[in-house]
Amino acid sequence: MSTQTTVIVGGVAGGMSTAARLRRRDEDMNIIVLEASGHVSFANCGLPYHVSGVIPERRSLLLQTPASLAARFNLDVRVNTRAVAVDRENRTVTTDTGDTITYDHLVLSPGATPIIPEIPGIERALHLRTIEDVDAIVAALSEDVASVAIIGGGFIGLEVAENMRHRGLAVTVIERAPQILAPLDEEMAAIVEKRLVDNDITVLTDAETVSVGADSLTLADARVVPADLVIASIGVRPANELAVAAGLAVGERGGIKVDEHQRTSDPRIFALGDAAEKADHVSGEDTLVPLAQTANRHGRLVADIITGRDVARTPTLGTAIVGVFGLSAGSVGWNERRARAAGKNLRVIHLHPANHAGYYPGAETIHLKVIVDADTDLILGAQAVGGQGVDKRIDVLATAMRAGLTATDLADLELAYAPQFGSAKDPINMVGFINDNMVAGERTFQWHELDEALADGWTLVDVRTAKEFGRGQIPGAVNIPVDELRARIDELRDQKVLVHCQVGLRGHVACSLLSNLGVEVANLDGGYVTWGHGQLSRQ
Amino acid sequence: MSTQTTVIVGGVAGGMSTAARLRRRDEDMNIIVLEASGHVSFANCGLPYHVSGVIPERRSLLLQTPASLAARFNLDVRVNTRAVAVDRENRTVTTDTGDTITYDHLVLSPGATPIIPEIPGIERALHLRTIEDVDAIVAALSEDVASVAIIGGGFIGLEVAENMRHRGLAVTVIERAPQILAPLDEEMAAIVEKRLVDNDITVLTDAETVSVGADSLTLADARVVPADLVIASIGVRPANELAVAAGLAVGERGGIKVDEHQRTSDPRIFALGDAAEKADHVSGEDTLVPLAQTANRHGRLVADIITGRDVARTPTLGTAIVGVFGLSAGSVGWNERRARAAGKNLRVIHLHPANHAGYYPGAETIHLKVIVDADTDLILGAQAVGGQGVDKRIDVLATAMRAGLTATDLADLELAYAPQFGSAKDPINMVGFINDNMVAGERTFQWHELDEALADGWTLVDVRTAKEFGRGQIPGAVNIPVDELRARIDELRDQKVLVHCQVGLRGHVACSLLSNLGVEVANLDGGYVTWGHGQLSRQ
Repeated sequence: MSTQTTVIVGGVAGGMSTAARLRRRDEDMNIIVLEASGHVSFANCGLPYHVSGVIPERRSLLLQTPASLAARFNLDVRVNTRAVAVDRENRTVTTDTGDTITYDHLVLSPGATPIIPEIPGIERALHLRTIEDVDAIVAALSEDVASVAIIGGGFIGLEVAENMRHRGLAVTVIERAPQILAPLDEEMAAIVEKRLVDNDITVLTDAETVSVGADSLTLADARVVPADLVIASIGVRPANELAVAAGLAVGERGGIKVDEHQRTSDPRIFALGDAAEKADHVSGEDTLVPLAQTANRHGRLVADIITGRDVARTPTLGTAIVGVFGLSAGSVGWNERRARAAGKNLRVIHLHPANHAGYYPGAETIHLKVIVDADTDLILGAQAVGGQGVDKRIDVLATAMRAGLTATDLADLELAYAPQFGSAKDPINMVGFINDNMVAGERTFQWHELDEALADGWTLVDVRTAKEFGRGQIPGAVNIPVDELRARIDELRDQKVLVHCQVGLRGHVACSLLSNLGVEVANLDGGYVTWGHGQLSRQ
Repeated sequence: MSTQTTVIVGGVAGGMSTAARLRRRDEDMNIIVLEASGHVSFANCGLPYHVSGVIPERRSLLLQTPASLAARFNLDVRVNTRAVAVDRENRTVTTDTGDTITYDHLVLSPGATPIIPEIPGIERALHLRTIEDVDAIVAALSEDVASVAIIGGGFIGLEVAENMRHRGLAVTVIERAPQILAPLDEEMAAIVEKRLVDNDITVLTDAETVSVGADSLTLADARVVPADLVIASIGVRPANELAVAAGLAVGERGGIKVDEHQRTSDPRIFALGDAAEKADHVSGEDTLVPLAQTANRHGRLVADIITGRDVARTPTLGTAIVGVFGLSAGSVGWNERRARAAGKNLRVIHLHPANHAGYYPGAETIHLKVIVDADTDLILGAQAVGGQGVDKRIDVLATAMRAGLTATDLADLELAYAPQFGSAKDPINMVGFINDNMVAGERTFQWHELDEALADGWTLVDVRTAKEFGRGQIPGAVNIPVDELRARIDELRDQKVLVHCQVGLRGHVACSLLSNLGVEVANLDGGYVTWGHGQLSRQ
């Protein structure tokens, strides 16, 4: 076999994973990497943290250089080199530096491009995607900047917001949707929004920017937001220009279409990373999930396939996490909004356990939500917001989802327990217990179903203590503490009783008791806490 | 149906889980709990931390009282009440308080009893199992105590050691086996032992205590260990006296025999918790695993079965974790020692990744070991020792094991990534990659196989930099940095080359390169770091 040439467009996560793996599998192949920016293999997920100096050294972000990659992997890495055309018939790539390279295999991993709203004055907005971008932001910050407006309340927008606040700027986050953090449901996102506000960040939702002025933004409702600096962080779209020009198939949202071997509509051309479509774990449908770890895994996959292994991708769960001001917010799979829109029959479970045994110092609350397909008992998705241990629970749930465990199976997972790490009944086990109770017939209402339930004649009974009730209660609730229920059962005979407690656990005890005594009963899922988060989200 | 009576012997994790669940499932049942000690439902896993004041308030350990359980669950909880006899024919339990109670169902959850070595003077040794035990230790510490000897280097022994050290005592841990922490393999336990020693704890392994004096212990080799206080923490044996006297079947190691419904050889009697046998996840064989979370889960199970649900236990993985001096050590499933003894064909993988992206401040190393069945690719067990993130990786692996994922599947797990939580290629994914490389033919040697490999004519090549090599090297290694291998390939032609680097990654790159160039090659698993841990364990 004559020596083959693989040209890789894009030298960050996906492209560079492909290149290094190709070399490990084939010592003879010509491997050429074309990177439009001035840097390869940089730590794109670390960029927001260099803005504030949390990551103080710029060079920490530069994991490899063309020289180090040449030495280690004998790669021909060309930075500041953009692939501008593909001639599929002659199998060539042309670059903006005037080269035309003949390929045996072409790998497209150009990433994604920040979406820039088409509004007057937007030219002065910065964004954050490359080393050059972070340099521009750091340079801008060295000037006389007091305020920053961040257009977009997604994961990266919030990371930028936190880091700007650490620098002492007045920070406004502007989100067009009714909530920040679209992967979360509204009552979960509300917890994060509150943390931002508590840290003096202004968060504007349902807010559309219509123009950018010299030192401010104007919103559709005529509000003016101070903005010495503007960061556009609305999201990204697949960098598909090269693929489209080459006539490769792209999907509705612009992602390059690939099969389970990451092959495009041209069998000699592969695509991966943010530019390519993925398969959704739940539905199997094509989707866009711009995450570094998927790019890395698919880079390895493409290299294996090019070098003759028969391997295939697994669908993507979209597992993601963000940290802001000591709070972690993670999600995996579908949220309730999406699952309801898809018409699924659901069990939705909220709980608010401590990350580890409550009697050991330093326990922090995790707000956990799991969405279960009631027909199959499979886990459709999960969200967690809290302190320590959020990432662990999301990872366990992501593993369970990938493996096809049911929600009931979670009850029997055997997780590492010592009082500083977890609980003898871990939050994950509790999800399994709660789900099992629902399978066995316990009915629950969601916070957003409460008004309808009350209108439908349910009596709302707060089973917390009188002291807790006194500190704040749901309008319309009557207070019968759980430990008094047996004695006061006559007050509830012949009624439909919707009980709630602080987090749901005493509500479950009350449900069991009332049900055993013949009362029609349901529990308010997640209790007063989830109800409160729901109210927060609707303010 | 007339009202039934269930008598539960033991009121801590397993017994109290049974009782509360029974009540939630049956409002009418008479539920009587007999607890020999003065406390129920106490936080037994927190006891070591009250010794030092990390958990300052004794009442934090008392999660429930007989009164609170009566109010909430209408339970008849009798503390300081020991069940002394069971009459199976007449279905009665007799107590040391003179009562004879007729049962419909009997649940044995008496826990385990500390093993006390039969040596002279052992009477003054304390142990740590109940609230009364911790009270006795705290009382003893209030006197003039400068030194403590802990017999037994297991999980609880180490927790006690740390907490005693926090009180400023001179602490010696005495372990009869060649290593502490039996669930770990020796090179992994060595990391923990070093941490203890670095914190001024004396650790004596291969050390058998033969007598206890007034202020010291004497070992079999005549060494004398200062010991104003002696804590016996050798392990526990099932508290099976009642079961044995009643003629119930018990296993070789004393555990009460149960079926998958936790039913003993008498169908009206159930057993669970530390007193009962479990089924091992890997082999399916009967085993003893005295862990709180298993007791809790089986308590729920027994209550469900008594109240008519058809559910069955899942086998146990023995997932466990301990924290000492900021180091976490966790394990799940089988260790290498056990798997080799069982004659399994293994792939053993050591790696030393950071818990999160190295460029984000505060990254800590996790020493991770995974044992894979080479015939099935199933994960047999895992161990992790390090700082933050050890518990997360053990939990993900425990979930993967329970779900029957293969080691190769780990490559594609999609775990939550942001730079403060993980890496785009998480340590768990890395295990999958390494395993996949081995499946594809990459050969590795374990640290304990090195001498044999060298005797067998393998050339040991250290592919780290000259600077790293200069700081310390494996005897007999020649240094050819990985980036010079291509140029210096002629030095290695026609040899069997065993490469190693610091942790294994550059070794893999070197293996790939040399293999592609036709050299017979293998990688030293875990690199210089694992080799060093091995040396430490054999000192």
